[in-house]
Amino acid sequence: MPDGFAKTPEPPYYAVIFTSKRTEGDHGYEAMAQAMFDLALKQPGCFGAETARGDDGIGITVAYFADGESIKNWKQNAQHLVAQKLGKERWYSHYELRVAKVERDYSGPEGR
Amino acid sequence: MPDGFAKTPEPPYYAVIFTSKRTEGDHGYEAMAQAMFDLALKQPGCFGAETARGDDGIGITVAYFADGESIKNWKQNAQHLVAQKLGKERWYSHYELRVAKVERDYSGPEGR
Repeated sequence: MPDGFAKTPEPPYYAVIFTSKRTEGDHGYEAMAQAMFDLALKQPGCFGAETARGDDGIGITVAYFADGESIKNWKQNAQHLVAQKLGKERWYSHYELRVAKVERDYSGPEGR
Repeated sequence: MPDGFAKTPEPPYYAVIFTSKRTEGDHGYEAMAQAMFDLALKQPGCFGAETARGDDGIGITVAYFADGESIKNWKQNAQHLVAQKLGKERWYSHYELRVAKVERDYSGPEGR
């Protein structure tokens, strides 16, 4: 799998889709975002994650999990709880979080 | 809903998650990407979409649909078929497409 893509198993599995708009300034965000990305990948049941943020401040991170239990454990991880609190207080002007069950998936382009 | 976020109804609904890595150079990509984003939003059953691409060339677009039928219709849209073909030939070095059923969602930060 190329860099930047999550290696996920055959469906079904879960996707946690986090879309956010950043506030102005860093306020410790970049270091925490990288730490949380790395920490998520170490969680039992986490298959990987994909992330992108453009110049308009809109970012999307999708993390892939085996089941609802592993998502719940990640949500309640102590370090992640600190990051969630700072996210609400400092880093995000708005966010949407969606939990979805992946039913099918495709890769491409074929042959590359 | 702030700019850049999709206004989705109460779950369940569907998310089509498209993660891609761009090839070098534009080759008509930006104009087509914007046209396809706008066209998707006009499809019956499409609630909206969110998109981000960072400096590393990894982009994530998530489009939200009412059901499998509206996703199928969008996949087979004539203009979209042209874009899909060019995407495979020119624009993407790799992509992953996942179709997922959103079971629950949250907004934040509360009070902003």
